[in-house]
Amino acid sequence: MADAPYKLILLRHGESEWNAKNLFTGWVDVDLTDKGEKEAIRGGELMKDAGLLPDVVHTSLQKRAIRTAQLSLTAADRHWIPVHRSWRLNERHYGALQGKNKAEILEQFGEEQFMQWRRSYDTPPPVLDADAEWSQYNDARYATIPPELRPQTECLKDVVHRMMPYWYDSIVPDLLTGRTVLVAAHGNSLRALVKHLDGISDTDIAGLNIPTGIPLSYELDAEFKPVVARGTYLDPEAAKAAIEAVKNQGKKK
Amino acid sequence: MADAPYKLILLRHGESEWNAKNLFTGWVDVDLTDKGEKEAIRGGELMKDAGLLPDVVHTSLQKRAIRTAQLSLTAADRHWIPVHRSWRLNERHYGALQGKNKAEILEQFGEEQFMQWRRSYDTPPPVLDADAEWSQYNDARYATIPPELRPQTECLKDVVHRMMPYWYDSIVPDLLTGRTVLVAAHGNSLRALVKHLDGISDTDIAGLNIPTGIPLSYELDAEFKPVVARGTYLDPEAAKAAIEAVKNQGKKK
Repeated sequence: MADAPYKLILLRHGESEWNAKNLFTGWVDVDLTDKGEKEAIRGGELMKDAGLLPDVVHTSLQKRAIRTAQLSLTAADRHWIPVHRSWRLNERHYGALQGKNKAEILEQFGEEQFMQWRRSYDTPPPVLDADAEWSQYNDARYATIPPELRPQTECLKDVVHRMMPYWYDSIVPDLLTGRTVLVAAHGNSLRALVKHLDGISDTDIAGLNIPTGIPLSYELDAEFKPVVARGTYLDPEAAKAAIEAVKNQGKKK
Repeated sequence: MADAPYKLILLRHGESEWNAKNLFTGWVDVDLTDKGEKEAIRGGELMKDAGLLPDVVHTSLQKRAIRTAQLSLTAADRHWIPVHRSWRLNERHYGALQGKNKAEILEQFGEEQFMQWRRSYDTPPPVLDADAEWSQYNDARYATIPPELRPQTECLKDVVHRMMPYWYDSIVPDLLTGRTVLVAAHGNSLRALVKHLDGISDTDIAGLNIPTGIPLSYELDAEFKPVVARGTYLDPEAAKAAIEAVKNQGKKK
């Protein structure tokens, strides 16, 4: 304990309505599907069974992460803990790709461009106009973000840059008080955090996938370095299967 | 607007599992019934239809109020607003009556004693032992309340005393920033607040009932006094019917 004083749990939201429809989602505020709700509840049960109970939760401003936090914490009988939310934990803004079908974008732009938008570290998709159909630029919840910070597209590098201040200013202080911290967020905001925690290179991060709904537990030492590299999934078998499935999906293309 | 700058919305949670079973609940952390969930969602729809959108929500540490806040805010598309929770917004602690059937207590102790426990301003029920079956005295969520403040029974006067610091220290500062504040709480913590807002006497408060699931909107002037006494229900017809039903219930006994 003395050399691993801090406990952090990462939880990626379960299936959303647009995951199910194969659309680029980004900042569009879609809800969980029934399957996604079940994943969230199972995530909470895994935390409860492991006796790993969050004392505080941090979420994005997006419904699929907020409801994943609510459902998992209710299942773990920790619905009553303090909640903090920030746009800095939002999913990557997918720019002009938001609302588009992934298969159609692949066909229209070809695999190289498609994969660069999806997986390159520093190539953002084209900007989404503030008043475009799937833009959230003028949504009331983002009114407090100054225009020069409010994204209209992002690459993973951009997500790292806007997420890190929240890690240092909000999550680390909670860890320092000895509290077990749950971060309920998104594929790319969590990849950005794992990249930092595990010191993963700009190249290697492309190969990292975080499965949905399976709590990923990190014990951190006094320097906030992981005791076990890449952390520990509370259901390792299910996590392995989910990661393999994503890899094989890639091979088929 | 100049003389009514502050907007406050009170929302009592919908039907709980123990309301449905006619048991004294107090601090026991029971969930909403399906009916209670529907009431919460309708409460959110009423806020949305009225264009009365909360900027911040305050809840108790109890599941039925927390879930009422979550369900109503999701229905109003305001799931993303900041959340604050406090035991000071909890339901009245019902002492040794918690977990008991109301009809049985009425039969055992007679109507006078029964009504005194339910409606008198300053007579609390007998203390509930810290290790009794329905005690939450040692629940982790209350660990930060010093023993001399942690209730083992309460009358409405006790609720007023422990609720008021939260009004002054947490809710009023949010109102002062110009935000519309939602308080999602319980029959007695909301009666305590309305007693203060409307200056209701210790005697008259006995006759005040707040219906479940219907947002009660207050515009407050610069001195935090209600512009309309007793506030305005967003569904006045349903509120009137619910209040009449409670009165007639009383007459039948």
